[in-house]
Amino acid sequence: MTRILYSLCGADESRPFSPHCWKVVQALAHKGLDFIEKPTPFTEIPSLEGGFSKTVPILRDGNELIRDSFEIALYLEETYPDRPTLFGGPAGKALARFVEGFSQMVVHTAITKIAVKNIHDMLGETDQVYFRTSREARLGRTLEEMEASRQAEIDGFAPKLEPIRHALKYHDFIGGDGPLFVDYILFGALQWMRVTAGAKVFSDNDPVGLWFERCLDLHNGVGRSVTAA
Amino acid sequence: MTRILYSLCGADESRPFSPHCWKVVQALAHKGLDFIEKPTPFTEIPSLEGGFSKTVPILRDGNELIRDSFEIALYLEETYPDRPTLFGGPAGKALARFVEGFSQMVVHTAITKIAVKNIHDMLGETDQVYFRTSREARLGRTLEEMEASRQAEIDGFAPKLEPIRHALKYHDFIGGDGPLFVDYILFGALQWMRVTAGAKVFSDNDPVGLWFERCLDLHNGVGRSVTAA
Repeated sequence: MTRILYSLCGADESRPFSPHCWKVVQALAHKGLDFIEKPTPFTEIPSLEGGFSKTVPILRDGNELIRDSFEIALYLEETYPDRPTLFGGPAGKALARFVEGFSQMVVHTAITKIAVKNIHDMLGETDQVYFRTSREARLGRTLEEMEASRQAEIDGFAPKLEPIRHALKYHDFIGGDGPLFVDYILFGALQWMRVTAGAKVFSDNDPVGLWFERCLDLHNGVGRSVTAA
Repeated sequence: MTRILYSLCGADESRPFSPHCWKVVQALAHKGLDFIEKPTPFTEIPSLEGGFSKTVPILRDGNELIRDSFEIALYLEETYPDRPTLFGGPAGKALARFVEGFSQMVVHTAITKIAVKNIHDMLGETDQVYFRTSREARLGRTLEEMEASRQAEIDGFAPKLEPIRHALKYHDFIGGDGPLFVDYILFGALQWMRVTAGAKVFSDNDPVGLWFERCLDLHNGVGRSVTAA
């Protein structure tokens, strides 16, 4: 059986950067499942698997096709119940949605403001046209205008992660003594920034930065295998 | 065995308002445990139970004394394991710290800016002096200066709760199909605002407002038994 993860890349295939795809890379590694990753440019995603999804990640697992990082994690938990749990039961599963909400509404919003021009610059020519048009419409500003406030966003980033910092007073990972999918949700966001923008957002002893380093080391350092920008 | 919850009140004992004490009221009700609530003014707390704690909640459970809302919830979970769970297992327990972090750093910060003058006005004379002095020092502004930006804080409140709104797309409570301590953590914050400031912060169909109404109905409406300001 061949397991394929379609993820996202720019001009350089060896530097996949999508936060949602990184969540799935870590989730597959957590479950100990082999897979082939196929990084794909933005504008080629709609052609994958007969037009199955407009976005990645897409996971092909034998005859199954699944889209959306959270859906994929739920699928893996249900399909491989004897492997290490990604959620730790129903309460952990429900609360993962709260963490997803925080990640998308707070962390992704901030990272977009820091990294959007860097992401653009990593893309191939066709993707650059698509990306600039769609992102400038969504953000209501040009990429260059976003770039102008980049340093202020970097400076204001760490305080926004205070809820993570609070949780890390009590255990090494957000999910407890070991990582769960909630850790990969927030890891994915920071890995996205690391690979695209390489911005230094944490002071050396920030517990969130130290937790992120622990996440980079997980599963034979799969996160660290792609270097920072 | 007498179980006593020491909570916080202003001049009117029948209107306890502390967010942390409301978490414990709901947690005790969730476990089906009877208790006597003893609402106490700020400046009388240090004399309770021989100077056991500078803050409430304090729970006396027979010969046991426990302080701090989260510690009390952990104690109840461990001491009454056959009653309905407050955490749903280790992952739920770990993630409750993340929710606590979000509640304290995001929700409490915003509510303080809305309600601080209202809280002052509810207090007895001795407490008012203590409260004004300590809060003005902590906030770096006079209570009247806080009051001036109150409406802007009310208008900006609902968007800050987007992670809760996201979680509620998937289930009726933050903890899943039924409430867990994480629901009471966030309920406590909103109940604090309801009892002290009575501010209307949600549009009629806001899922967070509807969830809060569901929480007010829980456990024979113990939350609703104290009217809004």
